Amino acid sequence: MTGRTARRRVLRVSVPGRTPPDARADLLAVEEPLEIRVAGQPLSVTMRTPGDDLDLTAGFLAAEGIIAGPAELAGITMCAGNVAEVLLAGGLPLPLERLRRHFLTSSACGVCGQDSIESIRLRSRYDVSGDPLRITPGTLAALPDRLRAAQRVFASTGGLHAAGVFSPGGTLLVMREDVGRPNAVDKVIGWAVRRDRLPLAGCVLLVSGRASFELTQKALMAGLPVLAAVSAPSSLAAELAAESGMTLVGFLRGASMNVYAGAERVAAGAASPAPGG
Amino acid sequence: MTGRTARRRVLRVSVPGRTPPDARADLLAVEEPLEIRVAGQPLSVTMRTPGDDLDLTAGFLAAEGIIAGPAELAGITMCAGNVAEVLLAGGLPLPLERLRRHFLTSSACGVCGQDSIESIRLRSRYDVSGDPLRITPGTLAALPDRLRAAQRVFASTGGLHAAGVFSPGGTLLVMREDVGRPNAVDKVIGWAVRRDRLPLAGCVLLVSGRASFELTQKALMAGLPVLAAVSAPSSLAAELAAESGMTLVGFLRGASMNVYAGAERVAAGAASPAPGG
Repeated sequence: MTGRTARRRVLRVSVPGRTPPDARADLLAVEEPLEIRVAGQPLSVTMRTPGDDLDLTAGFLAAEGIIAGPAELAGITMCAGNVAEVLLAGGLPLPLERLRRHFLTSSACGVCGQDSIESIRLRSRYDVSGDPLRITPGTLAALPDRLRAAQRVFASTGGLHAAGVFSPGGTLLVMREDVGRPNAVDKVIGWAVRRDRLPLAGCVLLVSGRASFELTQKALMAGLPVLAAVSAPSSLAAELAAESGMTLVGFLRGASMNVYAGAERVAAGAASPAPGG
Repeated sequence: MTGRTARRRVLRVSVPGRTPPDARADLLAVEEPLEIRVAGQPLSVTMRTPGDDLDLTAGFLAAEGIIAGPAELAGITMCAGNVAEVLLAGGLPLPLERLRRHFLTSSACGVCGQDSIESIRLRSRYDVSGDPLRITPGTLAALPDRLRAAQRVFASTGGLHAAGVFSPGGTLLVMREDVGRPNAVDKVIGWAVRRDRLPLAGCVLLVSGRASFELTQKALMAGLPVLAAVSAPSSLAAELAAESGMTLVGFLRGASMNVYAGAERVAAGAASPAPGG
C-alpha cells in the first residue's frame, strides 16, 4: 500500500498489421490519499505518491502559512499509512483565521473584481525581492538534466512530476517526485522546513512541468527567489512573480529559456566574464 | 481579464556563445480564479482559464454528484467574470450530505485502513460496466492527433491541458482546454450536461496528459466507458477503472498503447476483420 510503484498487468496493443497484443507487467506510480490533521482536526486530503510523507506534511503546512519552521511543529505522526497527525508547538489548534481559503464561508471572498490575486494569495513571511542571487543562463540550462537524472520513479513509470531545489551554483540539494505537481513542491519545501533551512534564500526551484499560480505562491512562501519550469507559466504565475520581485523562468529546455519576471538575476549572469576573457 | 491568452514581455535568453538576450512579446495561457456558489453559498474556488465557464460550472456540479442533468439546474449566472452563481431547480440549497469531501469535518474520514478508494470515491449514477462499446486500436491511435489539431490556445501558449470526447467512430464531439487538467474534463462533461447528453455512453474521453484517480472518477460520473490518456495512469486510476468495468488506456502515442483495464473493448476491436480479409 505504501510503495511508490505498483506492478500491474497491462495489455500492450498496436494497430493491426504490427505486433499482436502482448500481456505484460507494467509499473505504475502509486497514488493514495493522505489526510493531514492538525490537533485532531482534518485539514486536507490530497492524492499523493506515498513516501516523504513527513516532508509533504511539513511543506504543506509551511506553504499554507500555518507554520514558519520546525520550532512551530511539535511533531508529525503517521497513522495507518494515510493519515498525518500534526501537533503544533504548544498544542495549538488550527489557526482558523489563516485558513480562510480552505473553508466554505459565506463571507464575500473578493474573487469578484479587479484584485483577484489579492483575494487568493497568501502573504509570505519572506521578501524575495531583495535576494541578491545571480545565476547564469548556462547554469540554469544545466538544471533539467540534473533533475531528470535524479528521478528514480519517473524512469520506471513515466508518471511522476518532480521538483528540485538547487544551490546558486547549480548543485541539486533535494529532489522529490509525486503524481501531483503541488505535492512534489510541498515535499521539497518540507525537506527544508524539517532541516530548519527556510527561507530558501539564494536557491532555485525547478519544476518538471508548468508553472501555475499555486506553485509560484508556494515558492514565495518558502522564500525562493527563482522559480524555473520546463514548460509554460500561466499568466497569473507571471503576474505574481513580477509583483513579488521573484524571477520566473519558463520553457527551460536545451540551451534557451524565457524569463518572464526578474530578468536582472539572469541577465546579469549572462554578462559574466568568460574564462580568460 | 477574461481572455484565454495574455500578452506579456519576455526575455528570451540562450547560453553564452549563442544569440544575445532578446526582448519579445509572448502569449501566456490566462489563469484566473473562478468561485462557484450554489444558492449563494460558496462551494469551490478553482484556478481556471476563462471561457466555457458555464460548461465548467455545470460539469463540476455533475462530476461532484450535485446534479445529474439540466433538469436539476435552474440556471448559472456569471458575476463580475469570476463568480458563477448556481440556482438548483426548485431553489434547493447545497445538498450538504453529498459534499462530505469538501468539508473539514471531525468525523472519521475513512482514509485510514484498507479501503481508501471507498472513502474518497463518489458513487456514479451510471454503470459503465455493461457498455457495449468496442473500439479498434487504429481508431484509438488516431485520437491524439485529432485532439491536438483542435487545440487552439495550446498552439499559441504551450500551456494548456486538453480533454476531448469522441464518438465510437472516432469523431471529436467536443474539446476543451484549461490550465488545470480537471477543469478541462469538467468543461467537456458540462458541455454534455447542458445539452442533456449525460450519460456519455458509448463515448471515449481523451486527456492530453496523465490519468489520475480524480479524472477517472469524473469520467465515471459522466458515464464514459473509456478513458484514454496520452501519458501514464496512476495506480489508483487503474484500480478504480478495473473495479468499475471501465476501459483505461494509457501511453496512447503513435501506433501503440497500454490497456490497463477493460481490454475487452479494445481487444475485440483488434480482432475485427481487415478489409477484404
